[in-house]
Amino acid sequence: MSTDSLREFVVALTELVESGADEPRILAEGRGLLGKLVATDDWLPEAFAQPHPQYYQQYLLYADPRERFSVVSFVWGPGQKTPLHDHTVWGIVGVLRGQERERSFVLRPGGGYAETHVGVLGAGGVTAVSPSIGDVHVVENALADEVSISIHVYGGNIGRISRHVFDAETGAPKAFVSGYASAVVPNLWS
Amino acid sequence: MSTDSLREFVVALTELVESGADEPRILAEGRGLLGKLVATDDWLPEAFAQPHPQYYQQYLLYADPRERFSVVSFVWGPGQKTPLHDHTVWGIVGVLRGQERERSFVLRPGGGYAETHVGVLGAGGVTAVSPSIGDVHVVENALADEVSISIHVYGGNIGRISRHVFDAETGAPKAFVSGYASAVVPNLWS
Ligand SMILES: [Fe+3]
Ligand SMILES: [Fe+3]
Ligand SMILES: [Mg+2]
Repeated sequence: MSTDSLREFVVALTELVESGADEPRILAEGRGLLGKLVATDDWLPEAFAQPHPQYYQQYLLYADPRERFSVVSFVWGPGQKTPLHDHTVWGIVGVLRGQERERSFVLRPGGGYAETHVGVLGAGGVTAVSPSIGDVHVVENALADEVSISIHVYGGNIGRISRHVFDAETGAPKAFVSGYASAVVPNLWS
Repeated sequence: MSTDSLREFVVALTELVESGADEPRILAEGRGLLGKLVATDDWLPEAFAQPHPQYYQQYLLYADPRERFSVVSFVWGPGQKTPLHDHTVWGIVGVLRGQERERSFVLRPGGGYAETHVGVLGAGGVTAVSPSIGDVHVVENALADEVSISIHVYGGNIGRISRHVFDAETGAPKAFVSGYASAVVPNLWS
């Protein structure tokens, strides 16, 4: 087990955000970098791949010191899923292990959220969200009897950002802060 | 236990190195920042304060993504000490808990290293090393029956730098890479 590929991803993303790239370029190049990271499943330390019997887990893997981006391991037990939620910053999602289902929603003129798209990503697949391209979705483990793991990258320190969950029927938002599942992150620098 | 003060230190040091400050300014301002960090002993997570019965421990607390600096917790069991060694980059040392003795050496014209200075720092004390101000020393726990902890900051990813230990008599150098004691670092971003 070597975290070299995660360190290389972090360094490349640091260079990308420090280059002054705008969001479309960050999403385009970031998807390429994340696709490369999740193409090989040999680098995630076991401690950051542990499911919880009740809740999907969000393990911080790395945060930029200026909180311009964060990298999170989502570990999905069988059947686990998010509520309908937004991010308020760009996000790139890559599947490392198993399968993830993403259902995208838009606000209806009359109120409430309507599902516009559903996609299932297998290992190696990559997708993106943001306020400019569609920021509201539900994500879930597409496998009924196995753990799935996806790597999420966000344009901020996602665990501390105040964002929203929604009632799909009425569209009513509720503020939430997701936090992180662990008090430690991997040492990428050994 | 909140790691807020460590995060604030990391952010301030990131700003300092990104400001383009030269080494004398980094050492001067860095000593001030580290002095503030070690003035209060309420932020180091227990997992990074554990002594080993035989060896002093070097726990990475944070590494800059461009490896411009690293922050390390040195945990000294009773009587533990380093060999005579150098760093090849600047270093700032602050004592968090207990007492640390530092013995500084210079190369003698005839060969071998001569001790030029010895100092004992208590909690809150700060000192510095570098190739330009004196880079060769021995550091040890000054307490015979208690654990001491010091926070070391270096101008690079110190655990991966090839540097030297010396035979004090002959001055003969031997290359070494110190590494780190743990595969995880604290999550500063919750
Ligand atoms: Fe999401
Ligand atoms: Fe030293
Ligand atoms: Mg930076």
